Amino acid sequence: MCLSGTLEDKLAAAAEAGFDGIELFENDLVVAPFSPAEVRRRCADLGLSIDLYQPFRDFEAVPPDVLAANLRRAERKFDVMAELGADTVLVCSSVSPDAVDDDDLAAEQLHALASRAADRGMRIAYEALAWGRFVNTYDHSWRIVRRADHPALGLCLDSFHVLSRGSDLAAIRTIPGSKIFFLQLADAPRMHMDVLQWSRHYRLFPGQGAFDLTGFVEKVLSTGYSGPLSLEVFNDVFRQSDPHRAAVDAMRSLLLLQEHEMPAAPELSGHAFTELAVTGPEIANALGRMGFTHVGQHPSKPVQLWRQGAARVVLNEGAGEISALAVESADPQRSIARAEAFRSHELSREQVSLPWVEAPDGTAVFFCGEGWQQDFEPTGRVDDGGAGLTRTDHVSLSQPFDNFDEAALFYRTVLGLRPELPTEFAAPFGLVRSRAVTNAARDVRISLNVSLLRRGEWAPGVPDPQHIAFATDDVFASASAMRENGAPLLKIPDNYYDDLDARLALSPELLASLREYSVLYDRDEDGEFLHFYTELLGSRVFFEVVQRVGGYLGYGGVNAPVRMAAHRRLRLARA
Amino acid sequence: MCLSGTLEDKLAAAAEAGFDGIELFENDLVVAPFSPAEVRRRCADLGLSIDLYQPFRDFEAVPPDVLAANLRRAERKFDVMAELGADTVLVCSSVSPDAVDDDDLAAEQLHALASRAADRGMRIAYEALAWGRFVNTYDHSWRIVRRADHPALGLCLDSFHVLSRGSDLAAIRTIPGSKIFFLQLADAPRMHMDVLQWSRHYRLFPGQGAFDLTGFVEKVLSTGYSGPLSLEVFNDVFRQSDPHRAAVDAMRSLLLLQEHEMPAAPELSGHAFTELAVTGPEIANALGRMGFTHVGQHPSKPVQLWRQGAARVVLNEGAGEISALAVESADPQRSIARAEAFRSHELSREQVSLPWVEAPDGTAVFFCGEGWQQDFEPTGRVDDGGAGLTRTDHVSLSQPFDNFDEAALFYRTVLGLRPELPTEFAAPFGLVRSRAVTNAARDVRISLNVSLLRRGEWAPGVPDPQHIAFATDDVFASASAMRENGAPLLKIPDNYYDDLDARLALSPELLASLREYSVLYDRDEDGEFLHFYTELLGSRVFFEVVQRVGGYLGYGGVNAPVRMAAHRRLRLARA
Repeated sequence: MCLSGTLEDKLAAAAEAGFDGIELFENDLVVAPFSPAEVRRRCADLGLSIDLYQPFRDFEAVPPDVLAANLRRAERKFDVMAELGADTVLVCSSVSPDAVDDDDLAAEQLHALASRAADRGMRIAYEALAWGRFVNTYDHSWRIVRRADHPALGLCLDSFHVLSRGSDLAAIRTIPGSKIFFLQLADAPRMHMDVLQWSRHYRLFPGQGAFDLTGFVEKVLSTGYSGPLSLEVFNDVFRQSDPHRAAVDAMRSLLLLQEHEMPAAPELSGHAFTELAVTGPEIANALGRMGFTHVGQHPSKPVQLWRQGAARVVLNEGAGEISALAVESADPQRSIARAEAFRSHELSREQVSLPWVEAPDGTAVFFCGEGWQQDFEPTGRVDDGGAGLTRTDHVSLSQPFDNFDEAALFYRTVLGLRPELPTEFAAPFGLVRSRAVTNAARDVRISLNVSLLRRGEWAPGVPDPQHIAFATDDVFASASAMRENGAPLLKIPDNYYDDLDARLALSPELLASLREYSVLYDRDEDGEFLHFYTELLGSRVFFEVVQRVGGYLGYGGVNAPVRMAAHRRLRLARA
Repeated sequence: MCLSGTLEDKLAAAAEAGFDGIELFENDLVVAPFSPAEVRRRCADLGLSIDLYQPFRDFEAVPPDVLAANLRRAERKFDVMAELGADTVLVCSSVSPDAVDDDDLAAEQLHALASRAADRGMRIAYEALAWGRFVNTYDHSWRIVRRADHPALGLCLDSFHVLSRGSDLAAIRTIPGSKIFFLQLADAPRMHMDVLQWSRHYRLFPGQGAFDLTGFVEKVLSTGYSGPLSLEVFNDVFRQSDPHRAAVDAMRSLLLLQEHEMPAAPELSGHAFTELAVTGPEIANALGRMGFTHVGQHPSKPVQLWRQGAARVVLNEGAGEISALAVESADPQRSIARAEAFRSHELSREQVSLPWVEAPDGTAVFFCGEGWQQDFEPTGRVDDGGAGLTRTDHVSLSQPFDNFDEAALFYRTVLGLRPELPTEFAAPFGLVRSRAVTNAARDVRISLNVSLLRRGEWAPGVPDPQHIAFATDDVFASASAMRENGAPLLKIPDNYYDDLDARLALSPELLASLREYSVLYDRDEDGEFLHFYTELLGSRVFFEVVQRVGGYLGYGGVNAPVRMAAHRRLRLARA
């Protein structure tokens, strides 16, 4: 269910990503032109075991005639499983109107089913659906399994069904590991909706959502459970995205569950630089007017290092986009070892001496150790502090629609960053979801953005712009210096300031300065955020300058629509 | 909120679609570079009044210091409204942690606000949000407004907030129409989720969802309310789709609310024909092998009429798609009058004598009166009944992502068809939503399909296939005859039949016949559905043959994934 495509697409992707086995979802088999025996051979050829056949629905606690029909149905499925070489079938708790609320009857009928399974060397894994009609908690399903008391009858535990209901996990440890036949894992964002819809559309791989999967798995393993850790993730996006990528994403999520066994992520200590691939002089001109100095030049390539304080930008040739993030790592080689362990492979690029991997959106991620600036020859020009920028505050990247959750997990696993809670805001051309990943010291911050629905023809700006935000300790001084220098700063409409005044009753002096310099403002209980933007430079890149006051940890998302509308108008005006 | 884009995009779209006025959503103004006075002029130039300014949040039932801040905030917004020339502001019930559950205090403070508004010739329209902290039903908001007893304080009624909670509508008639200051309309599908999320993401225009908007509006109008009927539709799709189309869709939804004043839709009595625009002989060959006869030829164009019983296909030249639906109308000119009244304009195409309009997906819809076949000269070939097809059962069209709900409303209004409840199923490359529109006699059936998320690069088959389903009274006889003739029928995998046997325990004879002829099967409480498919002909078109037994009203959606997987494999095999 985690992967898009037909059965052969899914099997190839799972094998390629290094999975040991699969759950076979009945629908995939039913629509396939291969006999179960052929599927068995194909899986064997790919090194995949078939660990579970599923789902078998609406079996237990029914009148005798329905039971007879259900047993007939089960026997047919056992035939298929025998051909497949699968020995465990998932039976999920009934939602049928035929079922009755009678644990003894459920136990008795599951016992009968288990006996038939045992005759064929098979096992029944009984699972409480969170929306089961009468059985919808794991402890209830365990009471029934214990009562049925058949060696071929055990439990399937699914993290979503357990955690979505907020069940107390203490009882897990009362279940013998040998009676847990199967473990299914899925994360999810916290949502306030019908649990069935939540489950069918919004599940995520472990580490992408809000559930504590690590704690859950520890509890289950403490019972002695030694079966597969399997992923069962119903997700509208994954259902339609490239299964080869999704399978790697999935594998990464499982590896994260055993993070203590993985190479630790070396400490990161800031953005070394951000690389822009540019055509023409527009961006270099803007950097100059913003107070940056071209301090270094690559000896053999048209690659320039620009600097202002500890804010650094590398200009390379290309189509006008952010082509690389470079983070300072305490140990670049160990950073690469960590990346490799999480299935992100070191790449090479001509004349790049830094170790690097590729993020899901295609951006290169360089790991810089001490002395990385030696790749550049000094130009002789000296950074005089320019307009007061001190360092890179964050880099903001628009993500491809299919890869937003993959990206959060990539940064969490490969770089050891921490994803923050996703936020949403209404932009002029649709809703935008945003999620930052940061290190503990918050000197590496990456903001990931995606439209809530993949954009169509109407919405402009596909791909959406990307930007680099630089920090200053005095936003007005920086803005003033840049304006002096003729930097292409973005004009913010007066209406914005009138609204700010109405909402926040700022001091007239502050409001006047904000208005004067087109600086935007946000605050929360911990501090303030003052920031301004440049115009779009080329089709896709702009810069931001930010001042954080106090403990403000956000990114001024409330102001993003103002910037977007202003960029849109400039784009139209130039078109 | 109904329209995507910046303020100028929205105003242009609303004016073009014939709206008299707008609600101005604060965010649109805040990000705009036009002063409120400039917006006022722009609206006036476009013939749009500004009927409401909104939203003003979290005002009432607060401690004195918060009240003072809120009144200051209100005065600033009154300043903006004065410049705009807007005299009514929407105040929605508080969700603030500062608010207290005290109707007297709420009434007192709203009275104070209304007094200040009145001083400036303005009015307050108080609205109960369905998720308001203390005030979340319309009757509660009315009790507060009545208690406050100020002429400048009235209600805003929003159909979503009222209907989503299932409130009893009887109390609406106890409100004097003069105290209802504003009426907002939104439909929605029935969903089981947090009402805030439901409201913010899934609202629809009246007639597109499950609410009885006509009944609601009647109740409100019966109070004597004579203000605007305004649309407030938060919808993730509309937020990012072409506002010019959405505005026409919106206008259509309002016209539907006064359907009794619109020209009635003439009775439709079946699919006259379906036109395919084709290149090469593949589809003509397939029709021939399926038992169709080329009975007519256009005198001046390379357009052919093929027939079998009352099933008719017109072949024209083109890129391999369904280019037109033709329905038999009791009065084609009145059909056009109806279409025009609902803002769908008659078009002309060279040498087409039939009156027609264009559906949202670009398909032409022809209205055929008696004698339409006279456009074709007989070829002399005679339909001998072929393979037993009797008529067109339905036409299935894949819709552009942005226009699915627009399409349902188009067919409902322009053709007078009835949309059925949407259904969803999991296809190999993502979820698919399907919604049929039919006439009362069910001899015109159109199935509209869309993927739940706009497809990306991975998923094949964009645009998705379209097909025509023909009816037969004996599916096996038709399949047998077509197979004899070498029609390119789609082979269904054995696994499908094994599963059918397990699930439904059909008689061995029936199962054997289904398997033998690759016929698929579905049943419900009312009847049975037996159907088979051709392979894909070209890149986008295929045919289906269906037999309905008893009162089965569906389209065999449960079997669609089987067909999709089979088509996908053929496509890959040929690639």
